[in-house]
Amino acid sequence: MEKIKPRTLSGFMELLPAEQAKMDKIMAALRENYSLYGFTALDTPVIESAPVLLAKGGGETEKQIYRFTKGDSDLALRFDLTVPLAKYVALNYASLAFPFRRYQIGKVYRGERAQRGRFREFYQADIDIIGDGKLDIMNEAEIPSIIYRTLISLGLTRFRIRVNNRKVLNGFYAMLGLSEKSGDIMRTVDKLDKIGKEKLRELLIGEELMLSEKDADEILGFIEISGTNSEVLAALENYRGRNELLDTGLDELGTVAKCLGAFGVPEENFAVDLTIARGLDYYTGTVYETMLLDYPEIGSVCSGGRYDNLAEYYTDKQLPGVGISIGLTRLFYVLSEQGLLSDETITAPAEVLVIPMTDSPAAAVETATFLRNKGIRTQLYCENKKFKAKMSYADKMGFPYIILLGEDEISSNRVSLKNMKSGEQEALGLETASEKILAFIAESAKVKPIKEKEKN
Amino acid sequence: MEKIKPRTLSGFMELLPAEQAKMDKIMAALRENYSLYGFTALDTPVIESAPVLLAKGGGETEKQIYRFTKGDSDLALRFDLTVPLAKYVALNYASLAFPFRRYQIGKVYRGERAQRGRFREFYQADIDIIGDGKLDIMNEAEIPSIIYRTLISLGLTRFRIRVNNRKVLNGFYAMLGLSEKSGDIMRTVDKLDKIGKEKLRELLIGEELMLSEKDADEILGFIEISGTNSEVLAALENYRGRNELLDTGLDELGTVAKCLGAFGVPEENFAVDLTIARGLDYYTGTVYETMLLDYPEIGSVCSGGRYDNLAEYYTDKQLPGVGISIGLTRLFYVLSEQGLLSDETITAPAEVLVIPMTDSPAAAVETATFLRNKGIRTQLYCENKKFKAKMSYADKMGFPYIILLGEDEISSNRVSLKNMKSGEQEALGLETASEKILAFIAESAKVKPIKEKEKN
Repeated sequence: MEKIKPRTLSGFMELLPAEQAKMDKIMAALRENYSLYGFTALDTPVIESAPVLLAKGGGETEKQIYRFTKGDSDLALRFDLTVPLAKYVALNYASLAFPFRRYQIGKVYRGERAQRGRFREFYQADIDIIGDGKLDIMNEAEIPSIIYRTLISLGLTRFRIRVNNRKVLNGFYAMLGLSEKSGDIMRTVDKLDKIGKEKLRELLIGEELMLSEKDADEILGFIEISGTNSEVLAALENYRGRNELLDTGLDELGTVAKCLGAFGVPEENFAVDLTIARGLDYYTGTVYETMLLDYPEIGSVCSGGRYDNLAEYYTDKQLPGVGISIGLTRLFYVLSEQGLLSDETITAPAEVLVIPMTDSPAAAVETATFLRNKGIRTQLYCENKKFKAKMSYADKMGFPYIILLGEDEISSNRVSLKNMKSGEQEALGLETASEKILAFIAESAKVKPIKEKEKN
Repeated sequence: MEKIKPRTLSGFMELLPAEQAKMDKIMAALRENYSLYGFTALDTPVIESAPVLLAKGGGETEKQIYRFTKGDSDLALRFDLTVPLAKYVALNYASLAFPFRRYQIGKVYRGERAQRGRFREFYQADIDIIGDGKLDIMNEAEIPSIIYRTLISLGLTRFRIRVNNRKVLNGFYAMLGLSEKSGDIMRTVDKLDKIGKEKLRELLIGEELMLSEKDADEILGFIEISGTNSEVLAALENYRGRNELLDTGLDELGTVAKCLGAFGVPEENFAVDLTIARGLDYYTGTVYETMLLDYPEIGSVCSGGRYDNLAEYYTDKQLPGVGISIGLTRLFYVLSEQGLLSDETITAPAEVLVIPMTDSPAAAVETATFLRNKGIRTQLYCENKKFKAKMSYADKMGFPYIILLGEDEISSNRVSLKNMKSGEQEALGLETASEKILAFIAESAKVKPIKEKEKN
């Protein structure tokens, strides 16, 4: 028979079992943390009606979209989880209670140019809180604590959640009479980290933006405000009373910063940062970025913000919300590239491999059943192979333990439990062996999927 | 702004939060059970190269497939999880250890005619064990125990795993010199349940099959063999020695049945059933079907079997395997239709809603943080609403508990914990309140997602 060469499309992540186990551990941690904050899990279709999905239309996204017809239907694959959420909330408005808090971890599709580390199918892990008409600022204040708890549970500690407020920015530029140019200015200011202060000033007064030197200095003075959160907030108080929107923004930023302690977020993992703006059209209040201190080149690993109207393309209802998103596939890829995925994660599909050494597998089957009844992931190995091949299989799969059952063990009502890491092997009663394995499971549950190392 | 009417495509399941919570509980049980048997979790792309996906080509499936181009690429959405597995194993053969045991729970796509209870996007939950060249019969013997444990953990008890062996069937028909007609005969025999014995006999001797009366009676005698498993196996021994394939099949069937006890499968949940055959071309050994005793009209909820060559379209390697599949979306749909999804499943996104009754939410935030640190799913409710609206939200969402924090509670360092089901409300220290909620969580973890009821 002629063979077709098997292949996986480029831009599509398909992991080997051990890597997949690491990915699954990260996903499980995200689910657990999002659930701790009372977000409900949603699952929406991968395929949507193209006119519905592209209601907002236009732009870069539309070129990247996977769109096709089937029969008479004009279909498209979702390119993010926000538009499906908007559709879902508009469609099910009457059945939902608000605030509606949902998380969704799902694959989205963008036909980008194939490139190392760029994916065409990738997981996003999103949370959003949607209000009906209004949504209290406390929801914005809670978001940093969700980011903090999630990253800590993944094993990260050296990160900073950077927070700003779009009302502060928009109010500030309105105060200077620069509202019309504010989008362009913010895009330019966003380059500060890369180009430095001098170059930024040149751009501000340059022919594109044509700001006055006075305005440029005002802007530089403003974005350079730094220090502890209370120092930044205190410095910002100097601007109070000059623009209403700015004042509201200062109140909101103050509320968000003030709640950190009660939410359990340490000061060092949080920074009010006036340079960040995030997507210019969409966000209207608090905005978030999260940087890994030792890996700034990765960019923000968790971003989002407050928006005023989730579903305006579908409904007249005003549905303000706040949300954050983790680009999970890309994050996994860069963590893996940087060697930050912990080696201590159990990547074998079971804690123990039971190997019969006699003709009858009956004792091995009973042993496996006993262990599974205890909740221990157990694989039975019954292939007719030489001992060496069996051990080589156990090694390659990375089982933490194996159990050998020969005539001696069966007649003495024991099992030989071998710790594959230490090489230690002992003959034990099955109950005792299972307790050992359960203790190991409890211990390895504490292993976090990411192991930080400071960069050289 | 002109609005686009939001809608979800027909044939695509999109659940409201409470239903989604029930679905997620079923999925979690499947993952847990599959993991107990040492299956590794795989995640393959939804989109594959169409020529790769359709290597086998032809047939009904190809018409239903979602196929499209993007740039120069001829793409298709996966229509099952078996072909992607074959591709994966062929592609990664050198990196995998065999037997390779994987489970995958993922969405697949078939553009079937829209029809009630038929889905175009649906979850399959598959497990497969793939051998390299050979695969021991014990792997086939283990499958019923996986089915049994999984269904029990879902809350089902009144089901029967029906098992047959294609070698027995093929050997039997070869013995009668009817190998060429065996496919047609098996398709006809498969109707026994529906049409009864008399009508079946008519079809066997009718103009389509044109069997002799003697052969028809041999066949009827064979498929009517029934009784306990040991009675059926004993009756089958009468056929031994007349055909080699049949003899091998009898040995295999005997091994599978003999291991039940050691695998913990009760006799009443298992039946050797000579009438079942499953997909005619693909399976070569043990085949499985699982019927709900009170809902035979649902058909088999978990089916599969042994096959000789997983990936022949991609590789010369002989890769025999055994696998089963649950059509999860359809199963969920019929369970829901039949009212079999348990009402006791917690469908709220959190165990407790914390409601501040004072101007400052600080105490509520600290309370929520405390509870989350204990692992309790906790939602904070800070909307500026009347008390009645807050309670109505708690009701609608179905939180098992709420915590109210007013001046009295804060000054006495207590919380008011209200059990929303019983209506009981008590002022407690936070530690005591959290213990109550944790006890409730431990109790409700025992609730199974399906609640059987005998049919009227």
